[in-house]
This record gives sequence, structure tokens and C-alpha cells, in this order.
Amino acid sequence: MYPDGVSVGIIDQRKLPFAFETVKLRTTDDACHAIREMLVRGAGCIGAVAAHGMFLAAQEAAEAENFDAAFQQKGGQLCKTRPTAMNLAWAVERSIAAVSAASDAAGKVERAREVAIEVADEDAEWCRKIGEHGRSLIETISREKGEKEPVNILTHCNAGWLAFVDYGSATAPIYAAHDAGIPVHVWVDETRPRNQGARLTAWELDQHGVPHTVIVDNVGGHLMQHGMVDMVITGTDRTTHTGDVANKIGTYLKALAARDNEIPFHVALPSSTFDWETEDGVKDIPIEQRDGIEVAWIGGEKDGEEVEVKLVSGDSPVENYAFDVTPARLVTSLITERGVCEASAQGISALFPEKFGES
Amino acid sequence: MYPDGVSVGIIDQRKLPFAFETVKLRTTDDACHAIREMLVRGAGCIGAVAAHGMFLAAQEAAEAENFDAAFQQKGGQLCKTRPTAMNLAWAVERSIAAVSAASDAAGKVERAREVAIEVADEDAEWCRKIGEHGRSLIETISREKGEKEPVNILTHCNAGWLAFVDYGSATAPIYAAHDAGIPVHVWVDETRPRNQGARLTAWELDQHGVPHTVIVDNVGGHLMQHGMVDMVITGTDRTTHTGDVANKIGTYLKALAARDNEIPFHVALPSSTFDWETEDGVKDIPIEQRDGIEVAWIGGEKDGEEVEVKLVSGDSPVENYAFDVTPARLVTSLITERGVCEASAQGISALFPEKFGES
Repeated sequence: MYPDGVSVGIIDQRKLPFAFETVKLRTTDDACHAIREMLVRGAGCIGAVAAHGMFLAAQEAAEAENFDAAFQQKGGQLCKTRPTAMNLAWAVERSIAAVSAASDAAGKVERAREVAIEVADEDAEWCRKIGEHGRSLIETISREKGEKEPVNILTHCNAGWLAFVDYGSATAPIYAAHDAGIPVHVWVDETRPRNQGARLTAWELDQHGVPHTVIVDNVGGHLMQHGMVDMVITGTDRTTHTGDVANKIGTYLKALAARDNEIPFHVALPSSTFDWETEDGVKDIPIEQRDGIEVAWIGGEKDGEEVEVKLVSGDSPVENYAFDVTPARLVTSLITERGVCEASAQGISALFPEKFGES
Repeated sequence: MYPDGVSVGIIDQRKLPFAFETVKLRTTDDACHAIREMLVRGAGCIGAVAAHGMFLAAQEAAEAENFDAAFQQKGGQLCKTRPTAMNLAWAVERSIAAVSAASDAAGKVERAREVAIEVADEDAEWCRKIGEHGRSLIETISREKGEKEPVNILTHCNAGWLAFVDYGSATAPIYAAHDAGIPVHVWVDETRPRNQGARLTAWELDQHGVPHTVIVDNVGGHLMQHGMVDMVITGTDRTTHTGDVANKIGTYLKALAARDNEIPFHVALPSSTFDWETEDGVKDIPIEQRDGIEVAWIGGEKDGEEVEVKLVSGDSPVENYAFDVTPARLVTSLITERGVCEASAQGISALFPEKFGES
């Protein structure tokens, strides 16, 4: 939140790593644009910006005739920007629930402000705990391998601190292990089409001094066949309470290769990413389709500036699916803020009994 | 071969589809450069250019003191350019064997010329037959599906006519089906890092009028989960006589997804791509590692010209594995010039008994 107390500052992640620019969000429309156009992306970060967007929405709703109707409508507008992202709907609903308890417009705006701060603080704290729980998984492999050899971890997309408020989900265990002196090396999938791996994860890991190597998305299977990957850790944009994991397109292929080569495949997530209603992730999680231009064109650095070039022949048609779903059967475990569990209703309900009506 | 009867003409495939340029090869070094730097690529095309390179080598050897020693040395030089490519070694060895039968330098040069022409003609004829055999696999699915719906075929990399002398291997069945009026639609993996799918396969299919859609390499699994792929057909750079398939990096991931979703995964190859000696492809086929610059930078079209831009953050290290090996257990069948067989020593020996000492 900006010092003015009414607007919200973000990093324009589209520009990284070739430029570092911040953008000020002043309206709900600004927040929608930032999420839809992916100035911000990543489960936790989308949740936090959505919660802050709801604070902007509350300020606008306070000017409307009917606060609640206007506020709900703006919440719906935010939710539509990225249909697969669970943290988005979760943050919007949480803000609506909190605001409804206040009686006047000023109180409602204040509640929306509090929720925005809570969501961001909670996300940072949850990711810190994910880091602790995940670190011990890395530590165990490190001990088995002999502590001089680095633990080779493959990750897909960016679930680092840029994707969250702090630490990240998938990278939190990696940072925690690295900071504790456990030798790690990260295989960074470039993550087409938007290359969040090559651009964001590589940049983050480099900033933090974590040894890493960028590869194209096609390589992971080959590395796993040849004993060059000890574990996979990814984030998720939505995970069903039955353990099916929606994440960046291509994650499913890596999970298949991990299973074929008996390599553990872990998914790190704060509980805000759980979908407590959907049973069958492959069938029922909506998969966002984005503009084909993101596949046909790519941006890269040339002479210190970012330049867009066209990759695809002529007018050949293009499709752009943003996520896929990895069935629970391929997931070794989920790393949450409450601990590590099996990717199944049983495993998840042991950590979150209140969500299964067992509290 | 050029009308001058001594030099060799090729298309510089690196420039496609944004420019169409031909290059004249005058020396063995030119041929090595064309293969190593991928002006030409694709199993059959590498074989044909290698055979023509051996014709250039023979002309040079005719000037040397010891023809056979010079010719062998140049053959070794050609073989080293792409270590995974089977057709390369096959063409070089075939030329050496043929040339050794002639007694004088002029006769040897003439034999090398004949072999170059034979290899190219054979490749075209074999791919035509692969097309016929593969077409019937597509036809069967088309009938099962109801002939109004297109058969959705996923392919990886380029095993089209550019990769061979004519028709291609993986695309030969597709062209044959399309020409016979069977409705087909091709999912074209862009095939990072060098994007032979987005650049070459898309261009070829477009030229031929075959409906197709370009996708990033991460998408195939999602499409297969949702019934949007009826079959996979790829080419191969080397297939062991036990059925293990080396092909462009990322092929293994698609084979895993095909198996997980019970989708047939076919590999099309002329018999010149078989490795009759290696038993265990995953363990023993040498996998070429290329310069990381091919991953960190990419070329695309901007204002009618090809421009290179940098994709990877800062100085992050990069690795570039060019191929992976799909174990025979994941391959539904091999489509060869002699027919379709199981990807196993038993299946292959039924079609090529003479290679198993059973002729």
C-alpha cells in the first residue's frame, strides 16, 4: 500500500528481469488490468493484489448508491480476470465477508483495508512456514546423497517471492535449505509461453545466490532418466481438496516423468490455494485460455531494451492454454503452512480438519 | 547436386520461414558446417547431405597422396558433427564401403557420386512408402471417429519433407491421409529451443494446406487429458533394434502423456535410422549437447527481418540437450518403409530379418 493510504504499489513483473518498474494502482479497473495482463502473477501475489483491489473497490463503492451491490459487482469483475486462480476468488470472498459485517461505508472501507493487509501478512507467514516444512524434505535427500553433492531440484514456472508476498511457495524450501547451508542446485524450466522461469525464477535465484541452470521445458524428462534430478517442487494455482493440482501448463508432463523415474514430486501451497469444493480437478477446474499472441510472439532483450519478435510461421493458427491439472496420483506430497501431507482428501483433511466439517 | 556436377545445393533451413535461401557446398568442411550449424537438419536430410559431403570428400581425397586414408579421415570429420544422428554415420559408412570397391581415384569419386544419388533417391522412396503404411493407421482412427471429425495428430519437431529428401517421415502419413481426403488436424509442438515445429512444420503444413495449430511444448499433456489428441506421430534421429527411440528433446514427455491417456504413439522412420548394434537406448545412445546460446537467445521476425533477442535473465547458466530417448515400452508402433511393426527386437526383426542374421 502506498504512503498515501489509498492506492497500491506493485512491481510490473512483465518487465523483469530486463527492467525494474513499479506501477501504482488507483482503481478496481487498474487492479483488474494488472492481474489480467499479468503485471502481477503467481498464486499468493494475485491473492494479495486482489485483496488490495477490493480495498480500492470499497473506496469506489463508498461513492455508489448501494455499497454492497457495487462492491459485489467489482468483486465479480476481479474474479473474472484469471479463472483458474484460486487465491483470487478466495481473497475477494474474504473481503466481501469481512466488509458485510461493518454497518457504514467508512467502516466497510476500513474493513477492506484491514483484510488487504491481513491477506498479505498471512501469505508471507504461510510461505515462511512452507519453507520450514519443505526444507526438511530437502535435508533428508541431502543426507542420503552425502552432503557434498548438491540436491538437484527441478521447478516449473515461478512460485518464488515474486509470485507471493515473500519467500514464495515452491522456492521457500529452496531458499530455506540454501540459507541453512544445504547445497542445492535448481533446474529452472524456462516455462513457455511467458518464460516466467527463464525471466523471473532465474533472476530471483541469482539475486539470492542459489546455484541454478535454465533449461527448455522439454529437457526435464531426459535429466530425470539420467539421475540428474533428485526432486521436483512446483507451486500451484488451485489444488482440489482431493489433491489434484492445477499449475502452469506443462507441470503434468514433469509429474509423469518424475513418476516414471521414481523421483518425488512435491507441490508447495498456502491453504488459500485449496479449492474445498471441486472433486475432480482434471474434469472440473476451469483452464484459462489466453491470447495466442503470447505464443506467436516473444519479448527478449536486445541492446538493453526489450524487443518483441514473431516466432510462428506466417498465419499459422495458435492456441494458448495457461494451465494443466496434475492428478493427485502423481503427486508425492503437498507442502502447506501446517505441514507436509499426502495429496488426497485423507491427507489434506488430517491437516485441515475444519474444512472437512471435522473441527 | 548442382548442374556443375561437382558441388551440392541445400536450403538454409535456419532462415525459414522468414527467408528462403539456398547455399552451395563446395567442400567437406562446407558440408560439416551445414550439418553442425543446422543449415540442414532432420534424419534423412542429414543422411543425404552426408552422402553428398562424402562425394565432395572423394573429390578432395583424389588430390591426396593416399585416397583411402584421406577419405576415411573426412568421413570421421562428418560423423562427429551430430553424434546422435544415425543416418549420418550410416551414409558415411555406406559411401566408404562403396568407394573401397573401386580401384582408381576417378572410379572412387564416381562411386561416391552414385552413392550420394542412391541415398537421396532411396530416402524419397522410403518416405513415400512410410506415408502409405502410416496413412492406413490414420484411416482406421478416422473410420472409428466418424469421418466428419478430423483426426487430431500431435507431432514434435520437424520430420517433414524439409527433414528428408521428400515427403518426410512423421508427416508422410499426414500428407498421404490429407491428399486422400481424410480430414486431419495437426497439433504442432513449437519444439524449443530451435522451434523447428513453429518455424518449419507449421510452414510445411501451411504450404500443403493441412489444417494445424501451433502450441508450446508444454500443452500436449493437457490436450491428451481432454480427448483432443487421437494419435502422436514423431520422427526419430536414431532407433535401436530393440525399439528405443532417440528424437528431439521433449519427445519422451509426450510419449509418457500418450501412455497415461491411452493414446497411440507412433514413430516413423526409414530403416537407415535404425541402430542395429545398441541394445539399451536410454543408457547408450550418445545425446548431443549444443551451445547454450540456442536456449538463451531466440530469433524471430520483426519488420520483415530476423532479429535475435535474449530470453534468459542476466548471466544465469544454461544447458542445451538436443535429444532424449523414449523407451520402447512407450512406443505403440514403428512405421517403416517395409510396414508397421511393434517397437521391439521381435517386431523389428520380423520386417528386417537380414539385420538379425536371419536372412
